Amino acid sequence: MIAELKRLFVGQPLATEQLAHERLSKRIALAVFSSDALSSVAYATEAILIALAVAGANALNLVTPIALGIGLLLITVAFSYRQTIIAYPQGGGTYIVSRENLGTIPSLVAASSLLIDYILTVAVSMSAAVAAITSAVRPLEPYRVELAIGLIGLVTLANLRGIKESGQIFAVPTYLFIFSTLGLIGAGLYQVITGQVSPAPPPAITHIPEQLQGLSLFLILRAFAAGCTALTGIEAISDGVPAFKKPESRNASLTLIAMVIILCTMFIGITVLADAYNIIPDGSLQPETANSQLARAIFGSGTLFYYILQIATMLILVLASNTAFADFPRLNYFLASDRFLPRQFAQRGDRLVFSNGVVALGIFSAILVIVFGAREQALLPLYAIGVFTSFTLSQFGMVQRWRRIKTPGWQRNATINSLGAAVTGLVLLVLAATKFTEGAWAVIVLIPFLVVILRSIHGHYMAVAKQLSLAGAPPPTAVRRHTAVVLISGVHRGVIPALQYALSLAPDNATAVYVDMDADATAKIKAKWEQWGCGVPLVVLESPYRSLVRPLMQYIDEMDALYDDDVLTIILPEFIPSKWWQHLLHNQTALLIKGTLLFSRGKVVTSVPYHLDD
Amino acid sequence: MIAELKRLFVGQPLATEQLAHERLSKRIALAVFSSDALSSVAYATEAILIALAVAGANALNLVTPIALGIGLLLITVAFSYRQTIIAYPQGGGTYIVSRENLGTIPSLVAASSLLIDYILTVAVSMSAAVAAITSAVRPLEPYRVELAIGLIGLVTLANLRGIKESGQIFAVPTYLFIFSTLGLIGAGLYQVITGQVSPAPPPAITHIPEQLQGLSLFLILRAFAAGCTALTGIEAISDGVPAFKKPESRNASLTLIAMVIILCTMFIGITVLADAYNIIPDGSLQPETANSQLARAIFGSGTLFYYILQIATMLILVLASNTAFADFPRLNYFLASDRFLPRQFAQRGDRLVFSNGVVALGIFSAILVIVFGAREQALLPLYAIGVFTSFTLSQFGMVQRWRRIKTPGWQRNATINSLGAAVTGLVLLVLAATKFTEGAWAVIVLIPFLVVILRSIHGHYMAVAKQLSLAGAPPPTAVRRHTAVVLISGVHRGVIPALQYALSLAPDNATAVYVDMDADATAKIKAKWEQWGCGVPLVVLESPYRSLVRPLMQYIDEMDALYDDDVLTIILPEFIPSKWWQHLLHNQTALLIKGTLLFSRGKVVTSVPYHLDD
Repeated sequence: MIAELKRLFVGQPLATEQLAHERLSKRIALAVFSSDALSSVAYATEAILIALAVAGANALNLVTPIALGIGLLLITVAFSYRQTIIAYPQGGGTYIVSRENLGTIPSLVAASSLLIDYILTVAVSMSAAVAAITSAVRPLEPYRVELAIGLIGLVTLANLRGIKESGQIFAVPTYLFIFSTLGLIGAGLYQVITGQVSPAPPPAITHIPEQLQGLSLFLILRAFAAGCTALTGIEAISDGVPAFKKPESRNASLTLIAMVIILCTMFIGITVLADAYNIIPDGSLQPETANSQLARAIFGSGTLFYYILQIATMLILVLASNTAFADFPRLNYFLASDRFLPRQFAQRGDRLVFSNGVVALGIFSAILVIVFGAREQALLPLYAIGVFTSFTLSQFGMVQRWRRIKTPGWQRNATINSLGAAVTGLVLLVLAATKFTEGAWAVIVLIPFLVVILRSIHGHYMAVAKQLSLAGAPPPTAVRRHTAVVLISGVHRGVIPALQYALSLAPDNATAVYVDMDADATAKIKAKWEQWGCGVPLVVLESPYRSLVRPLMQYIDEMDALYDDDVLTIILPEFIPSKWWQHLLHNQTALLIKGTLLFSRGKVVTSVPYHLDD
Repeated sequence: MIAELKRLFVGQPLATEQLAHERLSKRIALAVFSSDALSSVAYATEAILIALAVAGANALNLVTPIALGIGLLLITVAFSYRQTIIAYPQGGGTYIVSRENLGTIPSLVAASSLLIDYILTVAVSMSAAVAAITSAVRPLEPYRVELAIGLIGLVTLANLRGIKESGQIFAVPTYLFIFSTLGLIGAGLYQVITGQVSPAPPPAITHIPEQLQGLSLFLILRAFAAGCTALTGIEAISDGVPAFKKPESRNASLTLIAMVIILCTMFIGITVLADAYNIIPDGSLQPETANSQLARAIFGSGTLFYYILQIATMLILVLASNTAFADFPRLNYFLASDRFLPRQFAQRGDRLVFSNGVVALGIFSAILVIVFGAREQALLPLYAIGVFTSFTLSQFGMVQRWRRIKTPGWQRNATINSLGAAVTGLVLLVLAATKFTEGAWAVIVLIPFLVVILRSIHGHYMAVAKQLSLAGAPPPTAVRRHTAVVLISGVHRGVIPALQYALSLAPDNATAVYVDMDADATAKIKAKWEQWGCGVPLVVLESPYRSLVRPLMQYIDEMDALYDDDVLTIILPEFIPSKWWQHLLHNQTALLIKGTLLFSRGKVVTSVPYHLDD
């Protein structure tokens, strides 16, 4: 039944040979790889506004210069990543680049940052997607968390079925978002130029506090740091170079340039308009997004254009979280192949996707959504730390690479990447300092913790491989003598085959053991043993504390000590009901005993089944 | 580690012989058995007031005549139970009485009602206990659910350790509650008589709606039904007769009379005063209890007497839920002994208590508390249905008993019990009709559903017993021939002992099987097999869909079909890490294969362990 449900939702299994790779045109690749980066336009401007609001309404005008600064940062980082694209036509994910150029520990730091980053991408994007909808349809607001969890469930399921990171399907929402946002910006600028601006009415409750803080450098840096979430996702193209049509590097590089131009235009455009329309971020418990306020001010509430923009925003955010569903399992696969994560993450499921990674991402992001009540602005302070850690490591890895391989023009290349590493590293410090108390501390604590876990897992796998290696193993020795102990809980038909099995294995060394819990039952068993014991001696153990396991283990250890050259087999007669739910009705003692025996050295455990009819 | 935590919280195991029974004096027995009944005074009057409030403030005056009616009902039911006490000195629980006199189905209806009833006793009592406290300390109100869950957790833990249903410890809160309530009533009556009554100010939000309903018979019956929760728990003494000092029946009977007098006095006293002081039930989301309003009106807010009364109310309610923790596991034990519930419920845990029943009650009642937000007034409509079903069946069972055994004076006895059965049956109908839409429907649906479950469990146990019976079993036949299949996932040290074991079992019929998932790995294994295969032939299976289990099961079935007179043993080499958490790092495939084999007929499954060092 469970198998049928799985077929229904996840689909028929696919054969390994169906694993195929589609090559993407630049137009489609832009849609596929840029949704994560472009979608950050949905929340980045508001994040800056919220950070500035503590210094009052006048401070909000700083949003434009801050956005210009972030635009500059964006271009610097993009130049840096262009080098990665050229150097790694096989795909230059941060983990790969830092493993190759910086060594194990930095690569694990990068991996930990990325794992956290992908989980946050899903949580932030899905929360922001829901915010875009609840801003337009206010009565849905109380169901934020449910809606976000529902979206995560849908995308998880779609990825378990195996959505290809490609196809026309991705192009529609991305281009819809790009064109509707550019439309908004165009309409807004037209109103600004023609002097028709009617500033948005401030929300009932704003983020501006009663007691204003003075405008300090710290505050400006914090607003800058808040806006840096606009950069999340720009590394996606460098991870995905092999998916481009030939010449891969050139096409990827051109796509990156196109993406950065579009992203800068949209981000700065929205920010300038938010400034011009005096958008004040909504500080209520049911906030409307700043973008929604702006769109209503420009297009008017309830207009078709307004709704199209909100729907396009939701769709691209869902798409953005979908890219994390491709990247997270793939990173898990790399880590598991290198034995830093359990092997289960390296296996493709029925539908050729890394199902365990997909499920893990769904669960972790859903937990974050619940904990943060699906409020993307509350999640953002955690978000950027992981992203900038991985930016810095990736760029620094490139610098080391140039210094190592010294290809022609390496000095120039190294300089560009050094600049990238320095700038992103500096931003990382600013982020950590200004967002520390808002939640960034959790990520700063979590990254080294994850590194330790990954290393312990690796250590364990290496130790096991060494112990299991046959190099220098002694030649196999045959089993000389068998001893068998049959554990019984009564005398019934299920016991007979187990006794016969024990006799066939160890004709002279078989015993049956019973734990006395009730004098009457024991007397009955002793009486039946004459006829049905098959000549196997019966041992009855006392148990003053009603424990089954303790006296049994003691007896088994005594039997084990009897001979040096034997193999001790514990035989469990198990009667198997015909339906799975009926298992719940029988004592789970066999399971408990097997679990205990697992940790007791050198005992072979044998289940002899007796199948019941309906 | 888990075992140590269990020792810390639950205590050292107790030996079976430490199981002992204490006999109770009347004074102590009153405290032990009457907490459930007496504690209903904490919410019953308010329940009537809430039901009347829909007809406006004037209708609230009907509370006094309704309470007098309920008092009459109480006395009738008590007379009826007095007969049970005399007839069943060994303890006349409803399940026992109806099983003996009415047959299986009625006894299962009684059992289902009681199971629901006990869970509701805990949920209602703990919610009311919290309400008593939050009424006095208003800032605690938002933490109702957490407090109630905390109390349930504490009482569950105490019962897992094994609180005896006895002792001075129970007497203190019960008598404190009796005396402080009687003090309240005395003080109130004094104020009424001397004309010093200052009516309580009405709460900000009341249960009186804008649109009043007309006062109908239905509404009065609904208010009466709401007050019937005052009767919950009066059957406790008849269940516990054997715990009394000799002569048991006489002492129990006297205690019952004392309890009914006290209960009537307190319930009618509080109701009359609530009427005199114009108490209007608080309809806000953070309600204060009616009893707290009354106590503040009489003693004054913040007075010592007021706080003592609230604390005493909380304590007796906690005690009331504790009685359910004694009764629910005991009923589970009876049902499990009769094979209507899984056997696990019939076993005493380390501390000689029926731990599984205690834990089940804790979990179910906690779920109810969460679902109903720890609001006892919302839970009450569900509560009384189970109680009155069991009252009716119990009394009707007594009638059947008198008609069967015909002891001297049986006609008079049968008449008393018939009256009891008729009255409680009538109230049951009133309850079901008037409270149906308020939640009683859920209990009315659940009772037959539980009956069906109990019967299916019984049916399954009987079918198993029949199939396992050795009566008419053929004489045992020896095992003639062994076939062994070793499942391998690689060639390493852990495989060698499994191969040797297979050879010792079936020297000529042993094969090793490997599923090809990756051509490189398969080639390596084939190469190693020459040296380390111990002469066992290796079979490599193809798996186009990357499934491990399907090709293996197919091969095993083929091997099974090979001979008719053999026993097929599937041997799994398992390497066992030294620490439990390390298990998570290895493929759970062995577990999956064992699970699948369990349902495949007639295969013996053997685990040959290879233990790893740290």
